[in-house]
Amino acid sequence: MGINVINFQEKFSKFHERLEYKIIAAMNDYHFKLVRSYGDFVWHSHPETDEVFVVIEGDYRIDLRDKSLHLKTGEMVVIPKGVEHKPCAAKECKILLIEPAGTLNTGDAGGELTKTDLEWI
Amino acid sequence: MGINVINFQEKFSKFHERLEYKIIAAMNDYHFKLVRSYGDFVWHSHPETDEVFVVIEGDYRIDLRDKSLHLKTGEMVVIPKGVEHKPCAAKECKILLIEPAGTLNTGDAGGELTKTDLEWI
Repeated sequence: MGINVINFQEKFSKFHERLEYKIIAAMNDYHFKLVRSYGDFVWHSHPETDEVFVVIEGDYRIDLRDKSLHLKTGEMVVIPKGVEHKPCAAKECKILLIEPAGTLNTGDAGGELTKTDLEWI
Repeated sequence: MGINVINFQEKFSKFHERLEYKIIAAMNDYHFKLVRSYGDFVWHSHPETDEVFVVIEGDYRIDLRDKSLHLKTGEMVVIPKGVEHKPCAAKECKILLIEPAGTLNTGDAGGELTKTDLEWI
């Protein structure tokens, strides 16, 4: 692959399904993924890794067991490994995720929302 | 440290020096750093790691030996390990860098622009 500029909004224009994760870049063994988040996700944690959420557009809430984080466009948060969290988007929200390749969206919770074999766009 | 929302522009408001790198977050053994880039940087590469540039605000150019990359607000690029590059900002540009903790800004080139002992903000 060549070295090319990646425009977040242009990548988002390539898909419209919610809760589908698309890989847009790799940095060493980490992936950069986009998702159109919507609704309440499941409580889960990632026992093996920290996870970064960056809000590209929208309002996003991440519930922790002891507080709720409210993020808006141009904000990010690091959820440390092992910390239970539940993302919630009252309206569709465009999110950039950064985490090791192969990290499952549902972490240790599994279930029907789990996505594997993510597409590169 | 607690788990807190990070606002890129609010963090940029905390410093105004150019070419100073401020750490705003850690994800596993990676750091998220902000820099107010300005002018021509030095040609260098990072033999041991890929490096991600995200443009938070401004117009940014990264010269490679065989082409120039032109980035604007809301765009990113991965410079693969070992690839020589030279960032250039005709006007001040707000950049988010993502790379392993301890990665030097001047890579294998060294010199007077090298920054160590970065401050957390």
